[in-house]
Amino acid sequence: MLTLSDIKAAYDRVKSYVHATPVVQSDLLNGWLGHDIYFKAECFQTVGAFKARGACNAVQQLLAQHADVKKVVANSSGNHAQAVAWSARTFGLDATIFMPAFASQVKAQATRSYGADVILAETRQVVDAMVFKAAQKSGTYWVPPFNDLSVMAGQGTAALEAWSQLNDEPDAVFAPCGGGGLLSGTLAAVRGLSGSCQVMGAEPLVANDAAISLRQGSIYTLTDSPKTLADGAMTLSVGDLTFPYLQQLDDFFEVSERDIAYWTQWLQHLLKLHIEPTSAMTMGAVFQWLSAQKKRRKVLVIISGGNIEEAQMRRLWAQNHLATQPQLFK
Amino acid sequence: MLTLSDIKAAYDRVKSYVHATPVVQSDLLNGWLGHDIYFKAECFQTVGAFKARGACNAVQQLLAQHADVKKVVANSSGNHAQAVAWSARTFGLDATIFMPAFASQVKAQATRSYGADVILAETRQVVDAMVFKAAQKSGTYWVPPFNDLSVMAGQGTAALEAWSQLNDEPDAVFAPCGGGGLLSGTLAAVRGLSGSCQVMGAEPLVANDAAISLRQGSIYTLTDSPKTLADGAMTLSVGDLTFPYLQQLDDFFEVSERDIAYWTQWLQHLLKLHIEPTSAMTMGAVFQWLSAQKKRRKVLVIISGGNIEEAQMRRLWAQNHLATQPQLFK
Repeated sequence: MLTLSDIKAAYDRVKSYVHATPVVQSDLLNGWLGHDIYFKAECFQTVGAFKARGACNAVQQLLAQHADVKKVVANSSGNHAQAVAWSARTFGLDATIFMPAFASQVKAQATRSYGADVILAETRQVVDAMVFKAAQKSGTYWVPPFNDLSVMAGQGTAALEAWSQLNDEPDAVFAPCGGGGLLSGTLAAVRGLSGSCQVMGAEPLVANDAAISLRQGSIYTLTDSPKTLADGAMTLSVGDLTFPYLQQLDDFFEVSERDIAYWTQWLQHLLKLHIEPTSAMTMGAVFQWLSAQKKRRKVLVIISGGNIEEAQMRRLWAQNHLATQPQLFK
Repeated sequence: MLTLSDIKAAYDRVKSYVHATPVVQSDLLNGWLGHDIYFKAECFQTVGAFKARGACNAVQQLLAQHADVKKVVANSSGNHAQAVAWSARTFGLDATIFMPAFASQVKAQATRSYGADVILAETRQVVDAMVFKAAQKSGTYWVPPFNDLSVMAGQGTAALEAWSQLNDEPDAVFAPCGGGGLLSGTLAAVRGLSGSCQVMGAEPLVANDAAISLRQGSIYTLTDSPKTLADGAMTLSVGDLTFPYLQQLDDFFEVSERDIAYWTQWLQHLLKLHIEPTSAMTMGAVFQWLSAQKKRRKVLVIISGGNIEEAQMRRLWAQNHLATQPQLFK
């Protein structure tokens, strides 16, 4: 299992390349809820998401372990694509990113702007097959999106960094769950940093493969790509490397599409940040947890990123949620 | 006329109450345009807009000049309402804010959350009449939204503060024009800080009373409230105190509704900030100006605020502008 020292080693590798992102608060929200919520704003991270941390660590580990690294390849429809393209450029490597054709033009364009070749294929299955084939070539290495220890350790550096920015230890840390990379790294970091701080995850109710996996004790795989606003949590299943970490979480929450839209509107409005629905979903989990708390709590939320397609913005703002102020009933 | 020393005196008054907001950049945008653009992020200001600076200075000036100040009143449908409510609370004064009934529930709610009484009236004309009447009472003082020297001086502190955050002097500073308060203060500050830096303004093409006023050399008043995405620039006319400052601007630009939406989408996407269309409009002016520049320029843009109604978000994201990347043709 990853330990705090692995996360610290990853941080030593990545900290001069990635941004130290700010921790922000909303006094209004804290006042309304009666708790202290700290948001680690990874929307300001390089490439607009925490994914830069994992990719940056993984590419450096590859360079340290293999003498012949010339090129990295990745399969992703989202933030991991940009993260690997950026990391490759940073370390002078070639990169080819395989993306499903349904990925947004903006994300493909951003990935190309970091100098990577982008190859589109019709389905996620074809994309996966292509990346495995590409990685067979000598000198070419695959950077997996989550199921990889160096990627998981890199993602854990967000929580580690937040610890140095907070005055006191939080009572709980929340992060979203896609493939489980961010939560695995976060859990490894926080378990080493604190004897009492809880670590919890959030997933869309309509894409609840991780919640089902946790209930049944084995990895459950969705058959169809789920339709959720939280596009960073659309993965069909968690990984065999990440699942054991998810099993150690203190709790895990499923969040409705209504609540994802609700918290995206409110967090954009209150924090003045352009944050992804996948990040706002996590606040839905925080709200569920706080509803059962008897005393004032201090919570750290990892705001995973800020890359949002225009069609998603339209869906997010289709209804008015700002008319209903967040409130806890006690 | 206001001078740099007035702006510095205002800054000494407000700096321990307002936030020192960050100056941010987008490397992607700078790369695409071939210029260096710095954004002063007043969306992170107290109450979510630069208006806190002017109101905070004005309230302190009132307290210094009058022994009997018990209450302040203001007329506003937007950010000035919250700014005066917040300033009153900060200095232990009562506040009543008169707002037109068409003002958003969210803004009325936010104004009340600072402890002010909010009184709604049907039209802007009735609101204005009510505030003048309220200000007749002894101990009650009006904080005007823009046509007031202490308000104008307070708004100028954003540019002054930005100067201390930049390594070199910018070639030009841009700010949006509603009633002209922000531009007046910015002009007074920059003229004192620099012998060469240009100061320019931006206005919606469909609410171009200031542009018409500048062309005809006298204040022009719109007859109807214009329908523009840039709701911070909907004022019917500039003030007799602000107009002489606007006449000293180096240039003034009118921005189409399409360009306002275009730049709101792109700046939200690139900067990861929840910024108002009134702020993004200013980038439309920057783009027009840069199109005619032969050499690399350094530009400071005052991002005026980040308070956006949900209906406005829906309109802003109704079309896809992210498919067309910003590009200057040279």
